[in-house]
Amino acid sequence: MGHTKLNTQPSQSLAARATAVRPRVVIVGAGFGGLYAAKALRGAPVDVSVIDRRNHHLFQPLLYQVATAGLSPGDIAYPIRSIVSRQKNYRVLLAEAVGVDLAGRKVLLRDGAIGYDYLILAPGARHQYFGHDEWAPLAPGLNTLEDALEIRRRILLAFERAEREPEESRRRALLTFVIVGGGPTGVELAGAIAEIAFKVLVRDFRAIDPREAHIILLEAGPRLLPAFPESLSAHAAADLRRRGVEVRLNTAVTAIEAGRAQAGGQVIPTATTLWAAGVQVSALTRSLGVQLDRAGRVPVQPDLTLPGHPEVFVIGDSAAFTHQTGKLLPGVAQVAIQGGRHAARCIRRALRGQNYEPFHYVNLGNMATIGRASAVADFGFLRLSGFIAWMLWLVIHISWLIGFRNRFVVLFEWAWSYFTFDKAARLITGSLDDEWTGST
Amino acid sequence: MGHTKLNTQPSQSLAARATAVRPRVVIVGAGFGGLYAAKALRGAPVDVSVIDRRNHHLFQPLLYQVATAGLSPGDIAYPIRSIVSRQKNYRVLLAEAVGVDLAGRKVLLRDGAIGYDYLILAPGARHQYFGHDEWAPLAPGLNTLEDALEIRRRILLAFERAEREPEESRRRALLTFVIVGGGPTGVELAGAIAEIAFKVLVRDFRAIDPREAHIILLEAGPRLLPAFPESLSAHAAADLRRRGVEVRLNTAVTAIEAGRAQAGGQVIPTATTLWAAGVQVSALTRSLGVQLDRAGRVPVQPDLTLPGHPEVFVIGDSAAFTHQTGKLLPGVAQVAIQGGRHAARCIRRALRGQNYEPFHYVNLGNMATIGRASAVADFGFLRLSGFIAWMLWLVIHISWLIGFRNRFVVLFEWAWSYFTFDKAARLITGSLDDEWTGST
Repeated sequence: MGHTKLNTQPSQSLAARATAVRPRVVIVGAGFGGLYAAKALRGAPVDVSVIDRRNHHLFQPLLYQVATAGLSPGDIAYPIRSIVSRQKNYRVLLAEAVGVDLAGRKVLLRDGAIGYDYLILAPGARHQYFGHDEWAPLAPGLNTLEDALEIRRRILLAFERAEREPEESRRRALLTFVIVGGGPTGVELAGAIAEIAFKVLVRDFRAIDPREAHIILLEAGPRLLPAFPESLSAHAAADLRRRGVEVRLNTAVTAIEAGRAQAGGQVIPTATTLWAAGVQVSALTRSLGVQLDRAGRVPVQPDLTLPGHPEVFVIGDSAAFTHQTGKLLPGVAQVAIQGGRHAARCIRRALRGQNYEPFHYVNLGNMATIGRASAVADFGFLRLSGFIAWMLWLVIHISWLIGFRNRFVVLFEWAWSYFTFDKAARLITGSLDDEWTGST
Repeated sequence: MGHTKLNTQPSQSLAARATAVRPRVVIVGAGFGGLYAAKALRGAPVDVSVIDRRNHHLFQPLLYQVATAGLSPGDIAYPIRSIVSRQKNYRVLLAEAVGVDLAGRKVLLRDGAIGYDYLILAPGARHQYFGHDEWAPLAPGLNTLEDALEIRRRILLAFERAEREPEESRRRALLTFVIVGGGPTGVELAGAIAEIAFKVLVRDFRAIDPREAHIILLEAGPRLLPAFPESLSAHAAADLRRRGVEVRLNTAVTAIEAGRAQAGGQVIPTATTLWAAGVQVSALTRSLGVQLDRAGRVPVQPDLTLPGHPEVFVIGDSAAFTHQTGKLLPGVAQVAIQGGRHAARCIRRALRGQNYEPFHYVNLGNMATIGRASAVADFGFLRLSGFIAWMLWLVIHISWLIGFRNRFVVLFEWAWSYFTFDKAARLITGSLDDEWTGST
């Protein structure tokens, strides 16, 4: 309501009138990129609209902990409105952007449209199945809170069913967990499932021993964590193996069916296959009229703008930025955060009549947890692994979480889980029924 | 695994052999009744099987706080296995009981059967729509975590849609919340929605002012909280009205359709109707071959057993126990807890060759929250309302919660919410689509 009403009142000061014609900045997506762009525009003489299909910002790096019963959804999500509620020139729209009308300078919503003077596109990415979309219901990936709860449901339900399964081979399939993809998400899922099976559930069952669980991490390439230095990849593989995970390198998945996965010419009977491979950018980028790369990324200019459209920024996972090193910047939070801040800085410069500057990404390091008290961290000049890397990982992730309440609760959950070997969010919600009956 | 293997080993002591033929106690349902029966059987020379469709015990008295974004599902749920994991003679079955074969002494599961020597039936109850099952999708009730998340989704989504709704009458319908039923659940929901609208969301929107929200509590009878003394009912109604809730007494709902509810001869345009009326006991009781009351309750003997079947106890919401005062015991946690403990005590007595004793319910009091810093409490000799009742309510509910972790987190969330006027679990998960489009 606020400033838009000013228009109709006659006795306005010039400053107030100016407010009414402030440039409209539309931000699509409230992930890391969109959120930090919005934060960096605070106090700027613009009207900001943040559009997201969700009402919450999701702290994606900890999503695997929701999927493995360590954290609750509310611990890693934060209402977008609350983050910007004190900015009167901001509004938040719960809406789905379906396209961009570049000529008309409008974002097309599923129900309506919204005009912009500056557009920051940060719609993010999902996993993809490399042309095998039929694998999606059989091997869920991990992008949303719903995905995480579905994975949690499948993992916990597999143990429950194994407890009641009299037939030996079916029980073994129920206790076999296959994770496809050896990037950070795959490594983190494998490590966390191993912790559940071998530490958390140990006393809970009578007919089965959860320690019989078989956790298989499949990686098509020659090593885990390909974005990390080789020494850390080797450390991660060795550490996972020590924790009871079977790591199979150079092993591509060739088929996923109900009750089994096929990889490296071998059939693995399993009730639970999880997908941690492949990236596909939001379909929104297709409406931009430029040639996208295979994952749907937009090849951006050195200043992160769309070629020929200096008023349109594309940031985060959706951008193919190769100007700095010749290599694509990875789809991690820091790239999105710095991209969002850069776009905001450019807009502020333009409002002052200055030119954009090129985007310069500062690599603050790369981290992945392997499991309880173990992580790898690569800061270029420094490579860490084990407990120290894990402590660092903890501190850094807590510090980037949004909101004191979430930080406090996550820290408590971690301490609780560390000292008690308990996982607090061990709930099965949703249906008890499933596609897989073990009979196929 | 443990004791069942003992059978096959030749060199067993007599004591160990005895274990193998211990009486089998089957408990159906791990709500308050079933759980406290299981706890009270600790150390008894029996084999206990706990059957539940869910893997968690749900602390139902706080479910309305999940529905109104104050708590997360994990805060009020606890894995059943963890509760009894140290009892080697206990096992937990995630299974759905569909009937009882009294002659064969078997509980029929959807997938199998399980024999018993003693059976404790505590399957609980759900809400019912008094023959209007078509109202169920339009006016969800509050029994499970899924119900709570669905209600939370509807409440939060209504505000989001109102923010984007240009048409005045539709916006008003989106900001109108109708709660059917003035028992504790209805009172608690109405008070909590008022808190969200008038305190929590105040700064979050631009096009709407959440304070325009219209919260209507409908009660068919002459007063709220009919199980409480009249003075407390009057206090609750007055307090809710002071908090901005419209309380309509003697007003029965006659129709619920998409986009509207009808009550007292009046049509109320509303996008969100919530159901807090009517109790229907689990269909499991129908297989017992006795005449049930209208809600499906089993008329039990003075010792809580099924007539003619001293080996079968029916406790909690499923039992119609009228022997003590001539009036039906209410469907509250304390009745279930004391019933569960009573059944366990009877079984222990039977094992020692003693007779059952009749069940004697000790009314420890009755409480309901009205909202922030206000509750009513009836201890018979003492009636409290306002802040003191609320503090008491807090302390008692924290002390009955299962698990230190849950107690700590719930206490933290309450303190956080009290001092910041924030609700931490303000997440919309699930579909953004809905039956109601506002066009009907």
